Amino acid sequence: MEYFALPLQNLIEEFEKLPGIGSKTAQRLAFFTLNRSEDEVKKFASAIINAKEQLCYCSVCQNLSDSKVCSVCSNSSRDHSVICVVESPRDVLQIEKTNEFNGVYHVLHGAISPMDNVGPDDIRIKELVGRVSGGDIKEVIMATNPNLEGETTAMYISKLIKPFGINVTRIAHGVPVGGELEFADEVTLSKALKWRVEL
Amino acid sequence: MEYFALPLQNLIEEFEKLPGIGSKTAQRLAFFTLNRSEDEVKKFASAIINAKEQLCYCSVCQNLSDSKVCSVCSNSSRDHSVICVVESPRDVLQIEKTNEFNGVYHVLHGAISPMDNVGPDDIRIKELVGRVSGGDIKEVIMATNPNLEGETTAMYISKLIKPFGINVTRIAHGVPVGGELEFADEVTLSKALKWRVEL
Repeated sequence: MEYFALPLQNLIEEFEKLPGIGSKTAQRLAFFTLNRSEDEVKKFASAIINAKEQLCYCSVCQNLSDSKVCSVCSNSSRDHSVICVVESPRDVLQIEKTNEFNGVYHVLHGAISPMDNVGPDDIRIKELVGRVSGGDIKEVIMATNPNLEGETTAMYISKLIKPFGINVTRIAHGVPVGGELEFADEVTLSKALKWRVEL
Repeated sequence: MEYFALPLQNLIEEFEKLPGIGSKTAQRLAFFTLNRSEDEVKKFASAIINAKEQLCYCSVCQNLSDSKVCSVCSNSSRDHSVICVVESPRDVLQIEKTNEFNGVYHVLHGAISPMDNVGPDDIRIKELVGRVSGGDIKEVIMATNPNLEGETTAMYISKLIKPFGINVTRIAHGVPVGGELEFADEVTLSKALKWRVEL
């Protein structure tokens, strides 16, 4: 039995594939889309395509970027001797929002998690080691998530790069243990940055 | 201060424009999109464009359709002498799911609501009157929502088309199946009592 016309059915199914979107919400989004102007709909569709096509990883910090070197890494007013190591691009956003950090970043794209079969070689640790061994890095701040995987990753990286004579620090446990950086508020996060301790 | 690369920022903003999607969810959806394969992303984008470009309103029942006459209206095994009048295409879906109705539909695309400045000319009533005056219609079932606007619309249409000698009915009001009397509101319960049927 046909309920909806095929293009509508397709659109609903595509919305349903998004995380956290059930069938009722998908219907709502599909009807919302149909009620928008053709211009708006085209803008939406091309934003999707463009994001996928134009984004790459910064060759220095591995953050998502639309150029070979991202805007943070190519910014000469930032302190390139301090690297803040995070798990995901979203964490960069969270830290930038505090306005407390003027160094540069390194995005691991994950954390070591034997339970999920993610080992040190599956995240971008060797790129970090490359940066550390090559340049004038004074400090590496480990800002991985304050959960088991994040702590493990911080310890692992600390042991790897300390031999280079680098000061490796960890953001303070002002952030609630067991949580995720994404959900921390700016004040908590800036305190955690400020009270970082030596590993 | 740049947080995300521009194409990513654009995509997040586009997701934020969807109803019920806040900034955190929009970020999540954007990162989800970036992690999908290029094929999947293109399929998503073209589903959006196709739905907008290919869908039109059925010239008979005004439901969304990908052809001039929709699959229900062009189905000769359905009873074209019984029209079920609903407010939106979603209501057609709900009724089709019951497998209890073999007639055809008429989609009003709204309900009369003076509070929201929606009058009889703003919804597709004249198209219904056109169908009723032209053909061999035996019954029109008013299945508008059981709220103030839906009842008003049902009454209004009923007065308009009764002069054509058509049987105009309204879906029954009563307590929902599977519910408990305790949670039924007084109005519903009094209607359920009033319209009781013989067992």
